[in-house]
Amino acid sequence: MPYKLPVSLAARTPPCRLLMGPGPVNVDPAVLHAAANQMIGQFDPVMTDYMNQAMDMYRQIFKTSNRCTLLVDGTARSGIEAVIVSGVRPGDRVLVPVCGRFGLLLCEIAGRCGAEVHTVTAEWGTVFTADQIEDAVKKVKPRLLLTVHGDTSTTMLQPLEDLGAICARRNVLFYTDATASLGGNPLEADARGLDAVSAGLQKCLGGPPGSAPVTLSEKLLQAVGRRKHVEAGIRTDKHVAGAEEHIHSNYFDLGMIMDYWGPERLNHHTESTTMLYAALEAARLVLEEGLDARIHRHEINGRAMAAGLSAMGLALFGDQTRRMNNVVAVHIPAGIDGEQVRRTLLDDFGIEIGTSFGPLRGKVWRIGVMGYNARKDCVLTTLVALEAVLHRFGHRTPQGAAPQAAWDCYV
Amino acid sequence: MPYKLPVSLAARTPPCRLLMGPGPVNVDPAVLHAAANQMIGQFDPVMTDYMNQAMDMYRQIFKTSNRCTLLVDGTARSGIEAVIVSGVRPGDRVLVPVCGRFGLLLCEIAGRCGAEVHTVTAEWGTVFTADQIEDAVKKVKPRLLLTVHGDTSTTMLQPLEDLGAICARRNVLFYTDATASLGGNPLEADARGLDAVSAGLQKCLGGPPGSAPVTLSEKLLQAVGRRKHVEAGIRTDKHVAGAEEHIHSNYFDLGMIMDYWGPERLNHHTESTTMLYAALEAARLVLEEGLDARIHRHEINGRAMAAGLSAMGLALFGDQTRRMNNVVAVHIPAGIDGEQVRRTLLDDFGIEIGTSFGPLRGKVWRIGVMGYNARKDCVLTTLVALEAVLHRFGHRTPQGAAPQAAWDCYV
Repeated sequence: MPYKLPVSLAARTPPCRLLMGPGPVNVDPAVLHAAANQMIGQFDPVMTDYMNQAMDMYRQIFKTSNRCTLLVDGTARSGIEAVIVSGVRPGDRVLVPVCGRFGLLLCEIAGRCGAEVHTVTAEWGTVFTADQIEDAVKKVKPRLLLTVHGDTSTTMLQPLEDLGAICARRNVLFYTDATASLGGNPLEADARGLDAVSAGLQKCLGGPPGSAPVTLSEKLLQAVGRRKHVEAGIRTDKHVAGAEEHIHSNYFDLGMIMDYWGPERLNHHTESTTMLYAALEAARLVLEEGLDARIHRHEINGRAMAAGLSAMGLALFGDQTRRMNNVVAVHIPAGIDGEQVRRTLLDDFGIEIGTSFGPLRGKVWRIGVMGYNARKDCVLTTLVALEAVLHRFGHRTPQGAAPQAAWDCYV
Repeated sequence: MPYKLPVSLAARTPPCRLLMGPGPVNVDPAVLHAAANQMIGQFDPVMTDYMNQAMDMYRQIFKTSNRCTLLVDGTARSGIEAVIVSGVRPGDRVLVPVCGRFGLLLCEIAGRCGAEVHTVTAEWGTVFTADQIEDAVKKVKPRLLLTVHGDTSTTMLQPLEDLGAICARRNVLFYTDATASLGGNPLEADARGLDAVSAGLQKCLGGPPGSAPVTLSEKLLQAVGRRKHVEAGIRTDKHVAGAEEHIHSNYFDLGMIMDYWGPERLNHHTESTTMLYAALEAARLVLEEGLDARIHRHEINGRAMAAGLSAMGLALFGDQTRRMNNVVAVHIPAGIDGEQVRRTLLDDFGIEIGTSFGPLRGKVWRIGVMGYNARKDCVLTTLVALEAVLHRFGHRTPQGAAPQAAWDCYV
């Protein structure tokens, strides 16, 4: 049968959107440009040099000297699963502090990997104190502590300051999911004693979703190595299988992925060249701007957004002293249909903002200020458009107060 | 410490290569252009429409009416693992016919997923007869038959004609890995009775690596559904957990991925927008050319490459009546350093050809003629460059015979 091309694809150009939700957001045009480069071979010396450069640059971004710092070919969630399936042995006890959707996700993934999952919970919109986590660690005696650094579902940033010391004292492996936070909030993998961090490109790093930077400490890498198993077909006599039970995934076996990224250059998957180009350029832009300057840019623009929303008379959600720099949640005002507002913003202004999940679904909007979009023009445009839409649906706000409050933050 | 930009990245443009290895190959420029488009939101109506279009177009390419036809966010190997971890329950007996590296990979992945793996083997460079497979099915009584349609390590194409009927008679689920074959060799998922097919963009489909088209029959999707488990955080009262043991992966749970791609639109991972754009444009180009015309183009160019190599006096590897259209393996002539030839082709002509794995490592070159590079100019350029390099290293060939033999195929 003859195939009829769908009309909307014939145009082939996506509509112009200003993405001010919790991510993905608009990608820096330089990153898009890099992603459009032509392929080179998997073991071309230029390719392996690019892979080395990616490792080097992401070490700077994670603030680590970990040899095992690489990209997993998949979205941020693939990086989380790679760490957990490689790092957690079936039957291992893990502790997950849960105060948002992404804590629940860590439980979910760890459970599927056969872990014995223990949780400590706090209200959505708050974070944990180090004491709460230490008490739970004492009680549960986990092999790993799995934390979420920035949980976009609640906008909260979990302080990691004292957790590394707690883990070190009790010989617990320490992981954090920094998907939403990395590049827009301080994170120092080595100084915090982290054994694993995973991230994604599509939040503060200003890239597209589809590549997951991951770093593993030498200690965790050694543990992973004890479960390593080089696949038949490329295995040679010098490859000795690890003594412990194999990792229950081939695609996410960080030992094999490291053999591909490391000097051994053992073929594993076919590296996603397009996403590697994007990840390289995103990292280059972060380091060119400077990590501290970038975090400051997220802080000031996030503060301006929060100030503008407050000045509009909207109530911010969650403990504002623990908020990530890059995303603000506000309660949807009584009498307003949150989805109608979102749809009008999208249809009439081309602006996307988000809602949330679980207990917050339909209760809050989440407004992101991150990556390429952590800019004054994005903040001001979003504020005045939201003000106009609220006004249209009968919710009055003090005229001009929102942009003025934002302007005041940039003085 | 101040970060010094690596010099080679400062240039930021990868070198111009003609990729005539077993893939990835050069990507159609229209696909690169599509990949460079700006982001839109995950649940933007345009985004969900694009996802529907992708499902529709890949159904045409797989020749299936399977509802569950979608993209897994990862490389071709991620599609294989998604099918196996979702389709194979721990303890399930699977049968894998192995006559190349990618058969071994299926064993590897199935083993890690807890399957009881049985194999039937044949020499690399051959394929199985239907009788051989039926005998093994009778003996092993597997729940699934896992096959490789085109194994790039040997260039062989496994005929699937009678396997579906064998599987149907014995109630065996039937999967094939079509990464290397799809779009360049005939494959009809429904007509062959296939319950699952996975692929990648980077071979005959002419796209970049990093997205894995997958299709599942209704029968297999139902089986996957019995193991489904919607994650906490997005689960509501209406989501009933499947009765059977959960799938041991969250990222690769095709039930959840289908809930994201299907009308339910339940959030799972953050779709890789860039790779979706690439996958859409790659599919559009396939359908615009016509699947049959595209297969014919691969056939004629592959034949021209093989004829040219033969005319050069090189011995082709494997059963040529069973060769994939899109890749040709030749024995490296005695007295020639295969790696030196490959390096010279790359350094002095910008042309990449491949070697192989396992028993064929260093014994054969593999030369791909696929996707955007299944073209007369690519074939002729590669032949004359290889001829020149062989001549330079003292291996004499009949002057002009190789391109002439190729030209003769295009008459």
